[in-house]
Amino acid sequence: MPTIVVDVMPKAELLDPQGKAVAGAFARLGISDFAGVRIGKRFELAVEGEVTDELLTEAKRVADEILSNAVIEDVVGIEVVE
Amino acid sequence: MPTIVVDVMPKAELLDPQGKAVAGAFARLGISDFAGVRIGKRFELAVEGEVTDELLTEAKRVADEILSNAVIEDVVGIEVVE
Repeated sequence: MPTIVVDVMPKAELLDPQGKAVAGAFARLGISDFAGVRIGKRFELAVEGEVTDELLTEAKRVADEILSNAVIEDVVGIEVVE
Repeated sequence: MPTIVVDVMPKAELLDPQGKAVAGAFARLGISDFAGVRIGKRFELAVEGEVTDELLTEAKRVADEILSNAVIEDVVGIEVVE
């Protein structure tokens, strides 16, 4: 069954409290390899049958209008995984 | 600045209440194109400098031990994005 994967991240110019919390935990644990952490969401939309162009267009609309909040988030990726 | 992207999803055999809620919203909104929705997390780890094999190994360790809960989640992907 193919899956449409939608990735949503907090906008770059906004604070990301979850990411900041993880970065703080890294620092406390002595992990200094990473300069920053941001945390977003990954949606997996299961599709029965084939992924047509219309379906992909609908997935983009759903990603923009329902799965993400355009005020604070960006849809950073939509891809089909078989 | 390169980024290591870590994708974490709820285990397939577990209920995913967030995903179920979105699937329910789709049904109420008349969107019937998707057979199911699962929601996980996408972590972006910023790296200063080059992504070495050691750093990638450290990222895998961090993904398994800190960013995910192995009881209920799987790390489904680790990739480097330039």
